[in-house]
Amino acid sequence: MKLIHYTDLEATVVGIEGAKDVTMRTLISEPDGAANFRMRFFEVGPGGSTPYHQHPWEHEVFIIEGESACVDEAREEHPLRPGSAIFIPPNEWHCFVNKGETTLKFLCLVPTEEVQKWRAL
Amino acid sequence: MKLIHYTDLEATVVGIEGAKDVTMRTLISEPDGAANFRMRFFEVGPGGSTPYHQHPWEHEVFIIEGESACVDEAREEHPLRPGSAIFIPPNEWHCFVNKGETTLKFLCLVPTEEVQKWRAL
Repeated sequence: MKLIHYTDLEATVVGIEGAKDVTMRTLISEPDGAANFRMRFFEVGPGGSTPYHQHPWEHEVFIIEGESACVDEAREEHPLRPGSAIFIPPNEWHCFVNKGETTLKFLCLVPTEEVQKWRAL
Repeated sequence: MKLIHYTDLEATVVGIEGAKDVTMRTLISEPDGAANFRMRFFEVGPGGSTPYHQHPWEHEVFIIEGESACVDEAREEHPLRPGSAIFIPPNEWHCFVNKGETTLKFLCLVPTEEVQKWRAL
């Protein structure tokens, strides 16, 4: 088994267009033997947001800390709190916005590239 | 998208042999359109434990609240704390034990049966 605490890893700045004050840590992925899905830990600073975007793979998100909202395809905001779980289906537009004065922390899990390739067949 | 808070769902008692004071809520799964992996939320009472067992699918676990430990194949205990992530590879013996005086809360994600069937081919 692999045991890790998220603070054991250095956070990487998410530099893609539209990301504002977002960092990521990959907690579990292929090099650990995780063939099917990856667990990533995100932090978003006050006033920050993940990019409003879409992609062909799904997200499974769980809010750990902070006040936040999820923006949907109609650009409508849905309030979230610690303990909220969100499923974003493939190809759906979305982003996660920090609405508070502390760091937003959440998990976001995605299928591995191998699973994505299999699904595309 | 699907938005839910874990407290929106009723907890189901985990009745399998060896489980002690364990409940589960399935937050995201196939009926939501989640084809590849399921997000489940577990609670374990003080003195409780998940069953010491093994199975052909992996676990990706994240500790939300509580003092706990993970028991490995050598029956060795590894202390965990909120923010710990654990990868249990397929077929590895394991359990999660509440070591504190409050409820242990954690997420445990598993591949869907469709993905498991594909992997078995």
